[in-house]
Amino acid sequence: MPDARTPESLLAANERFYRTFEALDFPAMSRLWEDSSRVFCAHPGWMPLRGHRPVLESWQRIIENTGEIHFALSGEQAFLAGDVGIVTVFEGIYSTVGHERHSSGAASTNLFGYDEAAGLWLIFHHHASHTPIPEDAESGPLLV
Amino acid sequence: MPDARTPESLLAANERFYRTFEALDFPAMSRLWEDSSRVFCAHPGWMPLRGHRPVLESWQRIIENTGEIHFALSGEQAFLAGDVGIVTVFEGIYSTVGHERHSSGAASTNLFGYDEAAGLWLIFHHHASHTPIPEDAESGPLLV
Repeated sequence: MPDARTPESLLAANERFYRTFEALDFPAMSRLWEDSSRVFCAHPGWMPLRGHRPVLESWQRIIENTGEIHFALSGEQAFLAGDVGIVTVFEGIYSTVGHERHSSGAASTNLFGYDEAAGLWLIFHHHASHTPIPEDAESGPLLV
Repeated sequence: MPDARTPESLLAANERFYRTFEALDFPAMSRLWEDSSRVFCAHPGWMPLRGHRPVLESWQRIIENTGEIHFALSGEQAFLAGDVGIVTVFEGIYSTVGHERHSSGAASTNLFGYDEAAGLWLIFHHHASHTPIPEDAESGPLLV
């Protein structure tokens, strides 16, 4: 299998993470996560969670309670560091929870580990935090 | 020079970052940062900054405008991934800006690159975001 540790494959893995969240497909979301001791997830406004099980449980809960969610991503930057991929991205978040519509913005640090056997990137660290929504949220880049 | 890519040296670099901030020593703070294209810094509540110069300028401004700051760190976890060190930590932040005293809590993802020539870790990514202050902020660990 050709080595796919490239910025392009890393950005594709990052994109897949958000599209899977939009699909509200929990089994697919759980397949995107590394099962390791370094799993970390800070949803915007939450206390961070550590460990594969608490993080996956949080995704299940979020997915079950979300009616609809859409991400407008912008300003993605990707860096390779050996077996680790580092992505920073601005998320414009548009969601429906119950009958309420929400829009917000978050900046996210996403770290991926390269799974050599499977030939793909698995996310192990998602740190998202609220930011103001820039006016050009659909047109990016948004991060200075 | 012995290779110092250990969890202990990584945690020491992380500790040094906060102690240097407490010392409000901008020249020392600038020496802790990697000078590279992957430099990223999200101060709690700010839009993230990218690039060595904007990030260092932000530190200069913050240090100039802070009368006093103290960090109670807890729940540190450190992982090595080749030349990259990943630290997550909870920050209890106690500061004085002008005559106002502030206390807040933040969760932080800090990424360090190992500088082989110098034999030390340099920070290149600091993503700090506000969290509620847990009641046992001095006694940690605070992250679940």
